[in-house]
Amino acid sequence: MREPGRPDRDASRAAAASSDARRAPASDPVLRNPRSDRVRQVRALAGRSVRQRTGRFLVEGPQAVREAVQHAPGRVQDVYLTAAAADRYPEIARGAGDAGLHVHEASDEVLTAMSADAQGVLAVAETWSTSLSDLVDRPSGARGPRLVAVLSSVRDPGNAGTVIRAADAAGADAVVLTTGSVEPFNPKVVRSTAGSLFHLPVVTGVPVEEAVSTLGAAGLVVLAADGGGARDLDELADAAASRRTGTGTGTAVDLAAPTAWLFGTEAQGLSDAERGLAAATVRVPIRGLAESLNLATAATLCLYASSRAQR
Amino acid sequence: MREPGRPDRDASRAAAASSDARRAPASDPVLRNPRSDRVRQVRALAGRSVRQRTGRFLVEGPQAVREAVQHAPGRVQDVYLTAAAADRYPEIARGAGDAGLHVHEASDEVLTAMSADAQGVLAVAETWSTSLSDLVDRPSGARGPRLVAVLSSVRDPGNAGTVIRAADAAGADAVVLTTGSVEPFNPKVVRSTAGSLFHLPVVTGVPVEEAVSTLGAAGLVVLAADGGGARDLDELADAAASRRTGTGTGTAVDLAAPTAWLFGTEAQGLSDAERGLAAATVRVPIRGLAESLNLATAATLCLYASSRAQR
Repeated sequence: MREPGRPDRDASRAAAASSDARRAPASDPVLRNPRSDRVRQVRALAGRSVRQRTGRFLVEGPQAVREAVQHAPGRVQDVYLTAAAADRYPEIARGAGDAGLHVHEASDEVLTAMSADAQGVLAVAETWSTSLSDLVDRPSGARGPRLVAVLSSVRDPGNAGTVIRAADAAGADAVVLTTGSVEPFNPKVVRSTAGSLFHLPVVTGVPVEEAVSTLGAAGLVVLAADGGGARDLDELADAAASRRTGTGTGTAVDLAAPTAWLFGTEAQGLSDAERGLAAATVRVPIRGLAESLNLATAATLCLYASSRAQR
Repeated sequence: MREPGRPDRDASRAAAASSDARRAPASDPVLRNPRSDRVRQVRALAGRSVRQRTGRFLVEGPQAVREAVQHAPGRVQDVYLTAAAADRYPEIARGAGDAGLHVHEASDEVLTAMSADAQGVLAVAETWSTSLSDLVDRPSGARGPRLVAVLSSVRDPGNAGTVIRAADAAGADAVVLTTGSVEPFNPKVVRSTAGSLFHLPVVTGVPVEEAVSTLGAAGLVVLAADGGGARDLDELADAAASRRTGTGTGTAVDLAAPTAWLFGTEAQGLSDAERGLAAATVRVPIRGLAESLNLATAATLCLYASSRAQR
């Protein structure tokens, strides 16, 4: 029955009711109070100290939530959707329902109060940690990691997230964020990964020396990406291609071997000590006048060159 | 002579005086009033309408200003440096002096009031425009463009700037920002280019159809980068490498030919009509679970694959 004067509210309720079956129990009310305790608690997860105290973090936007629900449903605690987003991304509510997750319908005001970057879709998930030994200690016969990106003290969340996404796309087995790096559950990191945080292991809290020695012991060659590197990435790629077609004479650094790439910060790059940890320093060729590449783009070229050589 | 009670101010004046010779006439006072008309006018250049009205824009930070002074001194109107930045980056004041540019010493407060992103170094420069015909109409015998990046309606300034930087590093001849794209003098674009805005032509204000037809008429093959592209970038790179070593059988799309790459937005990609303008659609291979790559990283891989094939 329509109440005169409140047609929009009624229409919205009717629409919500019609899709309740696939989203939440019919008795579950639409969340409409942007000043509720729940909204306050979700919003507070933007802060690092709250994430560390509660062990929970924000997953913002349709792409990230879709990947979380599909690839790590056991870590997702709650999914929040506006009615419009539920209609636009039916696969999210469906996937969440299939995984037995609780999906809350919320008003636009509530979603916006929870996060300014959610585009109508938000999840709260539990943080986790992956250790280096989780990565390298494989059951006998299982394949060990063949391509790993190690980010040394990378503070910029957009750079860290974009490298995690590129590492995923290149088919890398893991990313290591060394001690002093931005934490992977920072909302900007999560957004920049575009869901890749849920696709491959991200190891945290390891000093760079330990990361390099453990990965080296596991049989990976450590290459340091450096603007002033001694070896040229193209030269290594050419050598790997020649070796593959049987026409080459080889070079000491084999891009097709299991490899851990070590990347420094955008501003400072790697320290002398860090470069000294690597079997070789490798530069991306610069053919124009640019002084350097952005960290994420340089890392993408290195990781793709390795994965191409490893095909 | 020291005035008791103002040692810091005196020390700073003495330091300024000692380096006046290479920075500005001895009579030129240090700018100390963060509320002056000059400061207000410089800061206003962060706004698009003011840039369009005045034909001037902000160049923020040591790397961008260094490249502007070195590669486009005729476009730089004023350089502003704090005393600390002048000591840290002596090559900037020296380069500006060699180019006959006016270098102003300013207090930290003044620099910060002019821009929050200047790190003590700022320039004001004149905007310019480059047309497609500037790019393709070469004197008889001169080499035409061999590698061009065309960004269709890219609004995100960080993405646009990072692609300009990567295009420069890959040795591309130009970048085209089609109608509807972010303007290249937006401060975030300028910062993301890390000086590359002053290294290669950036053509603006051209509809994508006109860009493609003009570049095609100039002999460039147009390739559309697309996640669902019909051709695989690795396959094209392999074919180009085989052709180079004389072992390959060739493929219809030659990555070593003069090429214009067409890139769409991060969110929407290219439209059907835009894809239809290209000789082929090309996908970057995704080996992991990622759905796609960030625009700037995908563009970097495409441009580097071309420049590698064109060596």
